[in-house]
Amino acid sequence: MPVNLPLPRAQDLKPVAGVTLGYAKAGIKTEDRKDVLLLTLDPGAQVAGVFTQNRFCAAPVQICQAHLKSGTPIRALVVNTGNANAGTGIDGKNRALAVCRSVAEALAVPVEAVLPFSTGVILEPLPLDKMINALPQTLNTQSDRIWLEAAQTIMTTDIQPKAASRQITLDGKTITLTGITKGSGMIRPNMATMLAFIATDAHVSQPALQEMLYYATQKSFNCITVDGDTSTNDSFILIATGKVANPEITEQSPYYPAVRDAITDLAVELAQAIVRDGEGASKFMTIQAEEGEDEAECKAVAYAIAHSPLVKTAFFASDPNLGRILMAIGNAGIRDLNIDAITLYLDDVLVACHGGRNPDYREEDGQRVMQQAEITITVKLNRGTAKATVWTCDLSYDYVKINADYRS
Amino acid sequence: MPVNLPLPRAQDLKPVAGVTLGYAKAGIKTEDRKDVLLLTLDPGAQVAGVFTQNRFCAAPVQICQAHLKSGTPIRALVVNTGNANAGTGIDGKNRALAVCRSVAEALAVPVEAVLPFSTGVILEPLPLDKMINALPQTLNTQSDRIWLEAAQTIMTTDIQPKAASRQITLDGKTITLTGITKGSGMIRPNMATMLAFIATDAHVSQPALQEMLYYATQKSFNCITVDGDTSTNDSFILIATGKVANPEITEQSPYYPAVRDAITDLAVELAQAIVRDGEGASKFMTIQAEEGEDEAECKAVAYAIAHSPLVKTAFFASDPNLGRILMAIGNAGIRDLNIDAITLYLDDVLVACHGGRNPDYREEDGQRVMQQAEITITVKLNRGTAKATVWTCDLSYDYVKINADYRS
Repeated sequence: MPVNLPLPRAQDLKPVAGVTLGYAKAGIKTEDRKDVLLLTLDPGAQVAGVFTQNRFCAAPVQICQAHLKSGTPIRALVVNTGNANAGTGIDGKNRALAVCRSVAEALAVPVEAVLPFSTGVILEPLPLDKMINALPQTLNTQSDRIWLEAAQTIMTTDIQPKAASRQITLDGKTITLTGITKGSGMIRPNMATMLAFIATDAHVSQPALQEMLYYATQKSFNCITVDGDTSTNDSFILIATGKVANPEITEQSPYYPAVRDAITDLAVELAQAIVRDGEGASKFMTIQAEEGEDEAECKAVAYAIAHSPLVKTAFFASDPNLGRILMAIGNAGIRDLNIDAITLYLDDVLVACHGGRNPDYREEDGQRVMQQAEITITVKLNRGTAKATVWTCDLSYDYVKINADYRS
Repeated sequence: MPVNLPLPRAQDLKPVAGVTLGYAKAGIKTEDRKDVLLLTLDPGAQVAGVFTQNRFCAAPVQICQAHLKSGTPIRALVVNTGNANAGTGIDGKNRALAVCRSVAEALAVPVEAVLPFSTGVILEPLPLDKMINALPQTLNTQSDRIWLEAAQTIMTTDIQPKAASRQITLDGKTITLTGITKGSGMIRPNMATMLAFIATDAHVSQPALQEMLYYATQKSFNCITVDGDTSTNDSFILIATGKVANPEITEQSPYYPAVRDAITDLAVELAQAIVRDGEGASKFMTIQAEEGEDEAECKAVAYAIAHSPLVKTAFFASDPNLGRILMAIGNAGIRDLNIDAITLYLDDVLVACHGGRNPDYREEDGQRVMQQAEITITVKLNRGTAKATVWTCDLSYDYVKINADYRS
């Protein structure tokens, strides 16, 4: 079960002026479930994207990058689940393009105005006919008030849909941001995650939007991990429809920080939702590495802890076998690390210092913290002022079950 | 259950002239099980060692390195299970030294002639009194014919003891090599593994012995992984007692390659035994990355596959969800990798080529191979002549069970 992740309520998800949603049941992998999402944008919207660094990046990711680069104003996003269209070579690219072409014809826009996204099984051909036959359904269901259905449509092994909204006021005008995301396994985003879409009705220049996207990505999706596997299809798209008549926000604008921070705040909520709904998750862990020489080494320490199967299984068992955390820190690849200078905390409990166990540490204190559903691990490296935070979950029987069963 | 790992038979484990073994039941973690091993060497033995690269390396590892560096001829190795004496700071070093001092007094040798080894739980103090009280037992049980008992003594979560012998003939004289190892979790050796000891009665110079050890390590223990976690206590020790009256073997000796290769062959068998008895293992996988620019990138590709939880769970399920292997290759960190040039084989089945699925690939062929207990994955990068092999096992419920239960 997801860790402290309430179901989003439809009434809490605010429409974003200029964004229309529609969905279909195309039967791509499973009959009778929503599996194709069409998101259409009014003219004038700005779109920015970041994508997976996996070298086997999927066909739709390659098409997205080309279409964004073409400079053609983006008017539609089409997303399918049940098939990743990854590891599919030139045929996969042709199929992704054919989907874009069908959408473009239906909307009377250029093919480059359509961005395709896929998620699901790798190495199998996208069922093109099913996709194309489903497009009329996505037009018949169009509404600006079905963000919850949109979040449901893009789920794969997710137990819960993930969606949230924010509203801020700029110069007396209300700006709305709504986002959806999906993903619970193959999660160790590197520049982006397994499908996230955030839209705002603010008026933002394309360069400013791209900067906000990079900033938010670094603070949110690039700080989470479930299993250390970076997906072939990770994509995070930020849309600004410009429907609110604020002056265009550029990087120099006084409003830039407020919008950037609201986007980041929303992205953090969505990124954490992925971890809370991580495959088999029973614990949500916040790992803080502090007092490092630079952010990179702090992240290396935090990820070494977050990726250790031995640390993750100990948390699953609520067993304060905390030497495993020291083992993981020692494996973070920091050559000149002075282990005698490190301190390790579990919530507020000082576990280790001077290279060994804190003499005042008591097993029952560790046990108390380990039994919580939310735990913070803090490592102080005592060699600088940099810090980094990573969010992750435990490794349970259910992770193995889900991934041994998935696909079959 | 271990994968194709027959129990070693006592009669197959050859005594090595100059090496005497003894064991004790010290009750370090569990009552009534062998948990302390004493290995004594006749004067004149050469000893070489490689140790973990984990920065939180254990107290006994630090003492071993200092004693080897001192140049004092090594006369005894003392090994305990049930406690790793890692993450124990200065107090841990004092306890490891106290054990060495007791052994040294009993044998009337300098303290630097004793090498200590520990394996077990991290972050807990070594029960010194139990260790020292058990030393007389280790002297009372001394024999040169109890290599199997020695292998049993050093087990932790291992299901089976791991030991093997080799004999070669040099210039009409029979040279014997016998080795033992332990380890099944926290296994991703980096320079060495979680305790391996190989002894030979050959006469080998110390520099030649150290070179043989590096060579064998690179081809054996540094090619395996169970869970990607590098232990704090990894140590691999090579002993040459010099009891066979061959001329001293140096790096220039014509006999050097034969001895080096016999050691390597034995080390590979022991290293593979660790994987076959990997925690929760039900499959043994050989991962070959070929046609790379250099060995480093081949190893990176092979380890990316071997460490992916999604690949490992698919193998556990015997599910040919082979797109996950492409995902892992894409995450190996090779920036300029041309995915369209790669071919992927499962045993002799061509799965993927030209960036996508082989048009002739049939699911039943993949399924047939996946159901085997031993599977070879071959990736051809098509960009050079280098290659590397890594051995690993699958990720099963039992891995989680073992590591969620271990310690408590």
